[in-house]
Amino acid sequence: MILTLSCPDRHGIVAAVSAFLLERDANISDAQQFGDAMSGYFFMRVVFEPAEKDSEEALRFAFAPLAARFEMDWTLRGPEPRKVMILTSRFDHCLADLLYRWRIDELPMQVTAVVSNHPRDMIGHVDLGDLPFHHLPMQGDKAAQEAQLLSLIEATGTELVVLARYMQILSDDLAARLTGRCINIHHSFLPGFKGAKPYHQAHARGVKVIGATAHYVTADLDEGPIIEQDVERISHRDAPEDLVRKGRDIERRVLARAVSHHLHDRILMHGGKTVVFAD
Amino acid sequence: MILTLSCPDRHGIVAAVSAFLLERDANISDAQQFGDAMSGYFFMRVVFEPAEKDSEEALRFAFAPLAARFEMDWTLRGPEPRKVMILTSRFDHCLADLLYRWRIDELPMQVTAVVSNHPRDMIGHVDLGDLPFHHLPMQGDKAAQEAQLLSLIEATGTELVVLARYMQILSDDLAARLTGRCINIHHSFLPGFKGAKPYHQAHARGVKVIGATAHYVTADLDEGPIIEQDVERISHRDAPEDLVRKGRDIERRVLARAVSHHLHDRILMHGGKTVVFAD
Amino acid sequence: MILTLSCPDRHGIVAAVSAFLLERDANISDAQQFGDAMSGYFFMRVVFEPAEKDSEEALRFAFAPLAARFEMDWTLRGPEPRKVMILTSRFDHCLADLLYRWRIDELPMQVTAVVSNHPRDMIGHVDLGDLPFHHLPMQGDKAAQEAQLLSLIEATGTELVVLARYMQILSDDLAARLTGRCINIHHSFLPGFKGAKPYHQAHARGVKVIGATAHYVTADLDEGPIIEQDVERISHRDAPEDLVRKGRDIERRVLARAVSHHLHDRILMHGGKTVVFAD
Amino acid sequence: MILTLSCPDRHGIVAAVSAFLLERDANISDAQQFGDAMSGYFFMRVVFEPAEKDSEEALRFAFAPLAARFEMDWTLRGPEPRKVMILTSRFDHCLADLLYRWRIDELPMQVTAVVSNHPRDMIGHVDLGDLPFHHLPMQGDKAAQEAQLLSLIEATGTELVVLARYMQILSDDLAARLTGRCINIHHSFLPGFKGAKPYHQAHARGVKVIGATAHYVTADLDEGPIIEQDVERISHRDAPEDLVRKGRDIERRVLARAVSHHLHDRILMHGGKTVVFAD
Repeated sequence: MILTLSCPDRHGIVAAVSAFLLERDANISDAQQFGDAMSGYFFMRVVFEPAEKDSEEALRFAFAPLAARFEMDWTLRGPEPRKVMILTSRFDHCLADLLYRWRIDELPMQVTAVVSNHPRDMIGHVDLGDLPFHHLPMQGDKAAQEAQLLSLIEATGTELVVLARYMQILSDDLAARLTGRCINIHHSFLPGFKGAKPYHQAHARGVKVIGATAHYVTADLDEGPIIEQDVERISHRDAPEDLVRKGRDIERRVLARAVSHHLHDRILMHGGKTVVFAD
Repeated sequence: MILTLSCPDRHGIVAAVSAFLLERDANISDAQQFGDAMSGYFFMRVVFEPAEKDSEEALRFAFAPLAARFEMDWTLRGPEPRKVMILTSRFDHCLADLLYRWRIDELPMQVTAVVSNHPRDMIGHVDLGDLPFHHLPMQGDKAAQEAQLLSLIEATGTELVVLARYMQILSDDLAARLTGRCINIHHSFLPGFKGAKPYHQAHARGVKVIGATAHYVTADLDEGPIIEQDVERISHRDAPEDLVRKGRDIERRVLARAVSHHLHDRILMHGGKTVVFAD
Repeated sequence: MILTLSCPDRHGIVAAVSAFLLERDANISDAQQFGDAMSGYFFMRVVFEPAEKDSEEALRFAFAPLAARFEMDWTLRGPEPRKVMILTSRFDHCLADLLYRWRIDELPMQVTAVVSNHPRDMIGHVDLGDLPFHHLPMQGDKAAQEAQLLSLIEATGTELVVLARYMQILSDDLAARLTGRCINIHHSFLPGFKGAKPYHQAHARGVKVIGATAHYVTADLDEGPIIEQDVERISHRDAPEDLVRKGRDIERRVLARAVSHHLHDRILMHGGKTVVFAD
Repeated sequence: MILTLSCPDRHGIVAAVSAFLLERDANISDAQQFGDAMSGYFFMRVVFEPAEKDSEEALRFAFAPLAARFEMDWTLRGPEPRKVMILTSRFDHCLADLLYRWRIDELPMQVTAVVSNHPRDMIGHVDLGDLPFHHLPMQGDKAAQEAQLLSLIEATGTELVVLARYMQILSDDLAARLTGRCINIHHSFLPGFKGAKPYHQAHARGVKVIGATAHYVTADLDEGPIIEQDVERISHRDAPEDLVRKGRDIERRVLARAVSHHLHDRILMHGGKTVVFAD
């Protein structure tokens, strides 16, 4: 099981949590913590094996008073894989990569659906197997399309929405509803090159490094809490299409890392930023 | 000797240049070229040993008609080290690094002066040896200070001005006069975090990567042609002062590479961008 | 068309080659060259559009005397994609990656066959489409298996053999026959951790960086000319299985780059090393 | 104060340590821990502000029974900077870098002496200020020189010896005496290119990446526990002297990081490996 918590920092949090787990005969296999001196907040992630007799429900019930005492935001999760919906558009390299990692058991998730604003035959290079595919075209009425999307998210019990090069901007309303459970990949090292066609912007500016950024989606476009970034060196020889090609490799590994961190409860949000207890 | 040239791309440039050098018994030791399909421009750098009888002046005279025929911007340089002035303010890590590299013969330059808007004892960690030091304080009248600076540049025959964490913004006029011969180090991966206190901006935004950018100075602040960039991964554990510390290492190596490229005539400017024939 | 050449370095090579192409009205779109002062060898790669009337055969015939004069090793190739055979074993991440890149037209190749020493259902995560698959089991008699493999290579006209985590060691004889046209991915930054189970070796040694190496196969195992390498930082937290996971990402991008370089004639071998005219 | 400990992993360690600190009103500002499933060992580093009344001695006395109960190897240290001796030979870039970082308060240490097997004027590019310098030449009798060195280490109370490109191999005996308190920088990414002239070995092998490794010195040359490694990409254009030049930058930053980690008690040794609680 994985316990994550954040709360105002003060004496005795670690002592209280570790004493709690010791009393219940839980076996801690990993623990990471971080006290942010600037914000005065404390963050912790504990992986443990509960005593055999202990159910998730019982643990939750027992932990609640302690959590209340320290004013914790907290989650406790068992080993069931999370339900994940993947949205994509014309470029399917991130989708293909996520599905491959899922198939070889690198990403512990259950894929509820693959959704695109384009028809299925646009995703020509990916073997969807018998995954449900939904074509939700964007025909002028964004609100209607988003309503369909939201009802699909709810109907499938989707816990995480991954925008895998989904080239539509979510409405503020939908973004707000998915706070903390929708990850986007932006193809630049934010805050450089927000908005459209970042590789063309990068080429025009003449940068020597390109990158990609995975972040939680918020109503402020390209301003959500950053989870992971990576970069590659480029040179004057690279035309915009070379940047697009080289960028695909960065995008897919950055997105995959971010999704993996989320699925393993390694990310704690605070303000507009993230604490990532990396592996 | 090093020949650099740029011109509209068309048939026969390489053939003409290489035939010219062959006829004069010059011995090419390195050559790099680049045709930019998007701008239709061609760029070339040739390192060669001229025939013994050939002077730089004679070569220049002989090459001029060919250069005119192809409408080349070109330079031809002998092996004399360039005259370089280094400007700094309170943080002297880039200055210390450049001087060390110069002392061990890594940077082929002649240092004409070290200049600061602070008094000499502010540069407490650097051994200036018997290098001329000039304190040009900024006392309200920027124009007067820059006039002093410019006359110093001219009096010393300075060919390259390096802003090694010089925390003053050059006036548009001075920037324009130094076009192509003034290199600045900005402590972020531009275009991210322009302006003041980029490490604090980076911390506030929660990025997972920080960087530094060396660029030619232009009237548009932080918008000059980028020469070199590099980055380091950071995490939520890094406070702004950690970013400042980690950034020092990036800044000094990025600036040193850019200065080295300039001193070896490896950089050709075109529009707002650079072609860098890296080693 | 792409012309590559290597020869003893002397005056006039570039002049001769560029004059030759100019005379025949060929339009050079890219050229890179390198003179290796230590070995006294010269290397060049030229991409050009031949005049309409010029066939590959005519160009070859015309270039031959010049090539002979300079004692060149040279190749001239048209735009036809090369025929490539991919060999794999139990781990199919490199195979999956190469096929995806091929499907989105990133790798200009024609896949002649996918071959494994395991049955097809061992490659469970990859959509082979209608690519020919051959199961060549290793049942004690290595020579017999390799004879089958070689006759398959010949029958299909395969020009490049890619060992995409093919866990069998080629015999000296087969390695020799495939000199310069067989690329392997080794899952360490050679020369560190040659041989079996490099991630376990890396974990045991306690390194802080892991890597992968793509190289041409030679009779000396793990000693062939290196084409491309890349690395990632790791920490004490990484168990061997974490290294295996993190390594997959390095392996597939290193192998893909090496294969791409080969397919674009960017690699020239010399002695036990490579000149790679990177993009 | 910084507490570090390692011990066989079992229930209740964190609970016991955090309860101990809570009882004594110590204020934890940072804590990191790691349970190594493979070796069954547990590692922890805690930074805390003790209650005003609590002396280091009192804390030590109080903690000892707990440490004994869990069979801990442990250290407890106050904020005094450690005493460090730096040894060098002909190449002084690492020495220059360490001294600069010390002068700007990046490295919390007290330099007891700079020692070289060459005379002081060989270190031409470094301002030693009024640091004690000792010339301990190697004149045939290694044992005599090492005896001098050891008595200097003892007389100065040196706690850490840094081999900053000191080109002499310590005897097994001296290496054994300095176990865990002598850091060396080797100019390759170990285990690649052990022994002499690693950059020349790297050039001869044709690798595409070079690196440097900081490690604790042990009797087994180049086999000591690795603390930190880093790398840079190179190409066929780099001659051995280019690798030496590019390597200097890697060496000095890798060594500086390793020394910094040691000075901040971030490194715990176990077997032939290190746990590094990085910042």
